[in-house]
Amino acid sequence: MTFNYANAVPTSTTNATEAILKAAADPEVISFAGGLPAPELFPVAAVKRATDRVFAQDGEQVLQYAGTLGYPKLQEQIAHLMRGRKVKATAENIGIATGSQQAIDLVARMLINPGDVVLVEDPTYLAALDVFRAAGAQVVGVAMDDDGMRMDDLQQKLTAHPAAKFIYTIPNFQNPTGRTMTAARRQQLVKLADQFGVPIVEDDPYGAIRYAGTTVPPIKHYDRTGSVVSISSFSKMLAPGLRIGWITADPAFLQKYTFLKQNADLHTDNLTQYIIAQFLTDEDLPAHVHRITAVYEQRAKLMLAEIDRHFPADVYHSQPEGGMFIWVQVPGELDSDELAQRCLEKNVAVVPGSAFYAGKAQPGTFRLNFSNMNDDQIKTGIQRIGKVLKELGVQ
Amino acid sequence: MTFNYANAVPTSTTNATEAILKAAADPEVISFAGGLPAPELFPVAAVKRATDRVFAQDGEQVLQYAGTLGYPKLQEQIAHLMRGRKVKATAENIGIATGSQQAIDLVARMLINPGDVVLVEDPTYLAALDVFRAAGAQVVGVAMDDDGMRMDDLQQKLTAHPAAKFIYTIPNFQNPTGRTMTAARRQQLVKLADQFGVPIVEDDPYGAIRYAGTTVPPIKHYDRTGSVVSISSFSKMLAPGLRIGWITADPAFLQKYTFLKQNADLHTDNLTQYIIAQFLTDEDLPAHVHRITAVYEQRAKLMLAEIDRHFPADVYHSQPEGGMFIWVQVPGELDSDELAQRCLEKNVAVVPGSAFYAGKAQPGTFRLNFSNMNDDQIKTGIQRIGKVLKELGVQ
Repeated sequence: MTFNYANAVPTSTTNATEAILKAAADPEVISFAGGLPAPELFPVAAVKRATDRVFAQDGEQVLQYAGTLGYPKLQEQIAHLMRGRKVKATAENIGIATGSQQAIDLVARMLINPGDVVLVEDPTYLAALDVFRAAGAQVVGVAMDDDGMRMDDLQQKLTAHPAAKFIYTIPNFQNPTGRTMTAARRQQLVKLADQFGVPIVEDDPYGAIRYAGTTVPPIKHYDRTGSVVSISSFSKMLAPGLRIGWITADPAFLQKYTFLKQNADLHTDNLTQYIIAQFLTDEDLPAHVHRITAVYEQRAKLMLAEIDRHFPADVYHSQPEGGMFIWVQVPGELDSDELAQRCLEKNVAVVPGSAFYAGKAQPGTFRLNFSNMNDDQIKTGIQRIGKVLKELGVQ
Repeated sequence: MTFNYANAVPTSTTNATEAILKAAADPEVISFAGGLPAPELFPVAAVKRATDRVFAQDGEQVLQYAGTLGYPKLQEQIAHLMRGRKVKATAENIGIATGSQQAIDLVARMLINPGDVVLVEDPTYLAALDVFRAAGAQVVGVAMDDDGMRMDDLQQKLTAHPAAKFIYTIPNFQNPTGRTMTAARRQQLVKLADQFGVPIVEDDPYGAIRYAGTTVPPIKHYDRTGSVVSISSFSKMLAPGLRIGWITADPAFLQKYTFLKQNADLHTDNLTQYIIAQFLTDEDLPAHVHRITAVYEQRAKLMLAEIDRHFPADVYHSQPEGGMFIWVQVPGELDSDELAQRCLEKNVAVVPGSAFYAGKAQPGTFRLNFSNMNDDQIKTGIQRIGKVLKELGVQ
C-alpha cells in the first residue's frame, strides 16, 4: 500500500542529520559533525550509585505510570537549579520533557498553525527548523553577529510579521555558531517581544558549560509578563542517553503543555526521572559540570589554535566561551555542501552550514564540534580541513 | 502575556483523564478508574539485575545519544517477539517509541491533515481520541458488539468516507470495553481496508495478557500489502514506568516515522532500552506474563462474580478474556458523567463512558479496571456501585 502522508512528513527521503552522522560513525572518519558530549567523562559510577538507591527505595513506584508533568521531587530540584540561574521559579513553573527536543516539539505544536511565522536566528538548530517546518510554520531568519541575534533586524522582521507566533533563540553558545547573546540584547529582546506581543522560546541546553567570560542571565530572568518559555536539559551537563529536559513557564502555559505532553507519551520515563533526582540529591552536579567544562575548554582552545595555524588567513571563525561548537566561514562563494563533501573525502566530517539556515544559506560555512574528539583527532582533523581549504584556493 | 495557542490545544481547561486520576489518588477512594498494572507484581529484582548488567557492560554507551529508531539489539528482540505472535518481522520492521502512546501520536501526525477522517471503534481509547482530535481529524465512530468492530458498519462508514486516513482499532481486550475482535472479523477488516485503500493502525498493548479463550493472531498477521501498522508496548507485560513501545511496519513507512520521531525526542531513553533488552536476554518474560495474567484472571473473575451478585439484573457487562477492563452498560438514559459522580460520592472511581465516544455517547456506560485493586477493594467497590445503581432506580 502507498501511504498518503500528512503535510508534516517531508517528501524528501533523505535526512541531512542522519546522513552526516551515519558517515561520521565510520571509525576511519574524524568527526566534528555530531553534537555529542565526551563519553569518557560521563559519571557512570555516580549514576549507577543513584540508580541503586532508586531501586532500593522506590523500586515499585518507578516502574509504574506517573504524572504527566513529571516527578514532583525532580520538578522541585529543577526549580532550585533555575533559581541558581537567576530565574524566579517554583516546582509549579517546571514541566519535564523527554529531552529538550520534546519540549521544542511540544511548544511548537502548542503555538504553530500551518502558515504561521516563526522567527529564528539565522543560522539555527537544525532539528528545531525541522520541527517548525513540520508544524507548517513559515520560518523567517533574523540576522546574527558575534553578539547574537541582531535587534535591528529583529525589529524589522517583527514589523514585517507582527503576527509571528514566537521568537526562537539559543542565547548561550548557540548551535551552530557558538555565539552568546549579550545581556543588553537579551533585555532589548524581551522589551521588543513584549512591545509586539510575541512570545520568546529560549532554548538553553549549553548555558552551564561555560569556560570563559562571564555568565549572562537567561532571557527568562528578564521576563516580567510571562512571555518567555525557557527550555533546558541535562543532556549536556550530565548525559543525553537519559532523556530528561524541561520547560520553565507560567502555570497557565504548563496546563496547556500537559495536554500535549499527555498525548505525546503520557509522561517521561519514570526510572530516569528518579535517577536524575537521586543524582541531584546525593552527587555533586556542579563539580561534574566543572570537570567536563575544563576538558571542553582545553579542546576548544586547541581547536582554535589549530584553526589559526592551518586555515587560510581570511577564514572567519567564532570565539565560543562555552558549549560545543565553533562556526567557520570561508570567504567567497564556496558551496558549503561541496566543502563538507570534500572534507569527508579526507575522512573529516563537518556539518555544512546550509543545514542550519531558515533563509538563503551563507556560502562557505560549516560547524565544528570540539567536545567529542581527543587532542590528536583535533590536530589531525583541523590540519586535513586546512589542506582542503587550500586545495580549494581559499586565501 | 496571553498566548495565542494553535488549534491543537483544546480551549477547555479541564482534562477528563487527569481529573479522574486526581480524584482516584485519594487513599479513601477505591479506584477502578485508572488503567494501571498491579505494582506488587512488578519484577523489581529482575529489572534491577538487568540494570546492574547494563551498567557493568555498557555504562558509557547507555548515557550517550543513540540512533533514532532504537537500540538495534532491542529491535531484533522485538522482531523475535512479533514472530512469536505470528507476525513476519525482522529488526528492519521495528521502530522503538517512548511508550505506545508516542507511537499513536507519531503515526497520527504522519497521516492526519486537519479535516481528515479517522475511523475508530466507538467507544475507544480516550488518549487516542485526544491525539486524533489534536491533529485536526474528524473522528468517526464505528459500532461494536461483543465480537469487536462491526464489519457491516465499517463498510458503511468507509463508503461514506472513502478518503478516510486510517482505521484505528484495539483488537485485543479493547480499551474501554474489554472486547476482542474475532479472527474472522480481522480477516474481513484487512480485506475491506485493502479494498478501500485505507491503512489500519492496530493498537495492541494488552494482547499478551490473555487468561481465557484462544489467542487470535494480530491483524498484522493477515496483512499482505503493508497496509497495517501495528503498535505494541512493554507497559502491560512488564512496566509502564519504563516508557518503551514500538511499531511494526514496512521499512518505507519507518523511514518517514524516523523523521517525526527525531523531531519528537531524538530517540527513546537509551538506558531504559538497554535495560529491557537485557531483561529479555537474561530473564523470563513469558513466565512473568504468566504470573501477572494468573492474578488478573482471578481479579477479573472476582469482579464479574461480584457484579452478578450486586448489580441489578438488566445491567450489561462485557466478558473479557484478558487485559484490564470490564465495560458496563446500564439500561435507560442515565447520564454517565452523573453516574460516575454518584459513584465517586461513595468513594468509588470509575471512568464514565462519555469519555470514550467519538460520536454520541451511549448513556449509562462506564469502564471498570480490575488489575490495580485487591480482592477486598473489588468486593467493597462493586457492592458500593451496586448500591448507587439501585438508588438510581436501575432494574
